Formats: sequence, C-alpha cells, structure tokens
Amino acid sequence: MRNLKLVMEYEGTNYHGFQRQINSKLTIQEILEEKLFVLTEEEIKITASGRTDAGVHAKGQVINFFTNSNIPVERFPLALNSMLPEDIAIKKAEEVPLEFHSRYSAKSKVYSYNILNSLTPSPFFRNFTYFLPRTLDLEKMRQGSTYLLGEHDFIAFRSAGSSVKRTIRHIYRLEIREKEEQLIELEVEANGFLYNMVRIIVGTLVQVGMGKMAPEAVKEILESRDRRKAGQTAPAKGLVLQEVKYFS
Amino acid sequence: MRNLKLVMEYEGTNYHGFQRQINSKLTIQEILEEKLFVLTEEEIKITASGRTDAGVHAKGQVINFFTNSNIPVERFPLALNSMLPEDIAIKKAEEVPLEFHSRYSAKSKVYSYNILNSLTPSPFFRNFTYFLPRTLDLEKMRQGSTYLLGEHDFIAFRSAGSSVKRTIRHIYRLEIREKEEQLIELEVEANGFLYNMVRIIVGTLVQVGMGKMAPEAVKEILESRDRRKAGQTAPAKGLVLQEVKYFS
Repeated sequence: MRNLKLVMEYEGTNYHGFQRQINSKLTIQEILEEKLFVLTEEEIKITASGRTDAGVHAKGQVINFFTNSNIPVERFPLALNSMLPEDIAIKKAEEVPLEFHSRYSAKSKVYSYNILNSLTPSPFFRNFTYFLPRTLDLEKMRQGSTYLLGEHDFIAFRSAGSSVKRTIRHIYRLEIREKEEQLIELEVEANGFLYNMVRIIVGTLVQVGMGKMAPEAVKEILESRDRRKAGQTAPAKGLVLQEVKYFS
Repeated sequence: MRNLKLVMEYEGTNYHGFQRQINSKLTIQEILEEKLFVLTEEEIKITASGRTDAGVHAKGQVINFFTNSNIPVERFPLALNSMLPEDIAIKKAEEVPLEFHSRYSAKSKVYSYNILNSLTPSPFFRNFTYFLPRTLDLEKMRQGSTYLLGEHDFIAFRSAGSSVKRTIRHIYRLEIREKEEQLIELEVEANGFLYNMVRIIVGTLVQVGMGKMAPEAVKEILESRDRRKAGQTAPAKGLVLQEVKYFS
C-alpha cells in the first residue's frame, strides 16, 4: 500500500465546500473521490488538510489517500486533470511515508483574503474578492492586526458550529498589502485556524480600516473571548487556502 | 442633447461577443442598451470602440451614446452597475463633445493576451488564459515580435470574414513578459487592429517560442501577405481589450 499526497487548486464558487456531505450537494471531495475511483478502481477515501466552506477557494489544498494501485505517482495529475471539471485541478502528486496525514502532520497553513477596494465592482475579480467601496486606512488595519500576532485564545474569532475544544492558536504573521491598484490582500499564517477565523479577522480589521473601531479594540475583543464583539464574518469568496506547510 | 462616454469592464465568457446580433444570441451591447433604456427611458444605440468576439474580455472597452436625459453623468456607473449582471461593469462615465466617436476618435488601442505556461491547468485562470503546457523560449518570441513593430500591411495576420479594405496598421509596441510565475503576458499597442490580428500574432509567436518556426519567419510571413503562412488563431479567452486611447 502507498500513501499519496496531492496538492490541489480549485475555485470554490460552484461547490458546497470541500467536505463530502450527507445530503446530495456537490462537493469537491465527492468529485475527486469519484475520479480516483475511475482511475484506480478502488473506493478511495481522501483526507484533506481541512475543509473549506462553500465559495472558498484553494491554490494549495493538500490531501492524501492510501492506494494499492501501481499507477506511477507522477501520472496522477495529468490523468485526474483530464477527468476533473475545469474549476478543480491537481498541481502536484508525490508518494509520502505511510504515517503522513494531511491534517495532523501540518505545521502551518497560509490563507489569503482579497478585498476589492474600488468604487466600481470588477467582473474580473467578482468571484475572488470582497467588494468594499469604502475608504480603508490600511495603516490602522495593520496596527490592529499586530494584537493578533503570537499565541492567543481566538475564541472571539470563531463562528458557532464547531466542536473543537482547544481554541488557542499561534499566528506567525499577518500581512496587509496593496497587491495591485484597489486590490488589497491580507495574508495570514498560523499553526491552525478556528472555524471562520480568517473571515472574522478580516471583518474586524475592515471595521478598523473604516474608522468604526479603534486599532486597540482588536486587543479588547481578543481578551473578551466574546464573538459578538468582533466584526462580521467577511464573505467566503475573498478567501483562498494558499499553502499547507509540513514538518519535512 | 449630450454625448456620454463610458468605460466598461467585462468577462466575455458567457456572451456571444460585444456586438448586437440579428439572431437572439446574448451580447454585451444588447444588455447595456436594455439597461440604458430602463435608466433613461430612451431607446439608446451605443457605439463601441470596436466589437470583441465571443469569449474575449475587456478592462477598458469604450462606448458612447447620445441622450436627452438629464441624469447627472456621474450617476450612470452606480445606477447601471446595480442593474447589470456581475460580469459586466461600468468603470467611468463622462460627458464628451458631440463630435466624439468611440471608434473614429481613437488614437490607439491596447490589448493584452495571457498564456498559462504551466504543466497543469489552473482553475483560477481558466477563463482568462490560453493553457499551453509546452516549453516556450520567450527570448525567441521577443526576437520574432520585433519584425511586427512599425507600419506594415498585416493582411497575413487577419482572419477571413472582414470587409475592411485598408490592411495597413502601425504597431507602436509589443511587450512579452512573465507577469507572475508561469503566466506570460503579451501586450500590444497599435493605431488599430485587423480582425483576429492579436490572436494570430500570438498563435504565430507561440510557434516561434516552441521552436517550430524561426524568429525570422515572422518577417517572411508579413511579407508573404498570406494568412496560411501564419500560426493558428490563439483562443479568444486569453485576450483582453485593456485600453482605448484618444487624442487630447
């Protein structure tokens, strides 16, 4: 038996998230497992680094699975890409040790969040950005973000509906930059994320950027451990799972 | 009566091109004229800087139209964007002299063409790039492109189906660069373009990049005035009308 690791890119717009669901809604996991069955003739169950919600995208989602197939690993991307819909693609495949687990072996994850900060919407970016036609003070957003760096209990930045008990996470970096004119990108790396954590961080920092909240309020929200004090959950479509890093 | 000029952005994927058609296929012109009718209660006929084919995009298409409406010009983008589908947007509106004509007053046009030069396809770029998983020698493509600069008869780089008599055009610049990793952008500015001219130029330079044609062959094709000697017409989805420039 071999353990294979795949790196995936997908546009989440047309899917009900990554994770297979009990009802019949279309998910990315379901499609990939179906194509793996066609390719290997095995009923493969994949494990992902984490689920992504409906509308959330990935440039570097990582999954792994066990197989008895002897198809050379380097053949998987081409073979699967020829069967997958155009909004899902396999970027890389490699054989990994049997103990590798795409979730538990992860050292950190990198997410980016894109805001279209212009007066008019953009057809080009419509599925990949949160359209926000308000003046944003990026410097204040950066000030507010500094309180989130390091190890904290992020329970105030978590949506209900999660069963995870431990709510302490470590944010290694959080960068806010103007990627191109009117396109603001927030990039955050942490050892793990709570449910909707990045989107609530964005929703909160946007309040700071619009001057509706002081940068220092971010510290108070964190300490309050109260979800109601943080900003709204920013729209799914701005979020991209960029990379999952592993202990090599 | 006022003459209004609008700058538009659109993703061409879901349309049968810009220009209104006799049959009932959905075009961008048709949708915009319909929304202008709702807004102004006038049967407005717009004039564009040029048509774009099915699948071709625009970041800076320019149109103009005459109206007796006294809606302030600065209200047009917001009002129209609230009615237009998400893949079409108005970026700017201004009143121009009555003699302004979006096509005849144009000094030059800028097109870009994007090639995804990677081994695996990309869900993110699938509607905006020509996926070409072959090794491309950009330096050779640049060498080949130099023969196209200046004033030439570009009839060898024109598709059949055009009634335009004069086939001499002046290319002011043609740049080929790596925009991001594996994303190659060709940008070309000219005083005008023949039907499919950019896409045939790309199809030809790609032959040069793959080593199937020498850079000097571009000169020979130009001089041959024979469409059959040039490369294939590259796919529509890689093409973007970036900007239309006007005198003054």
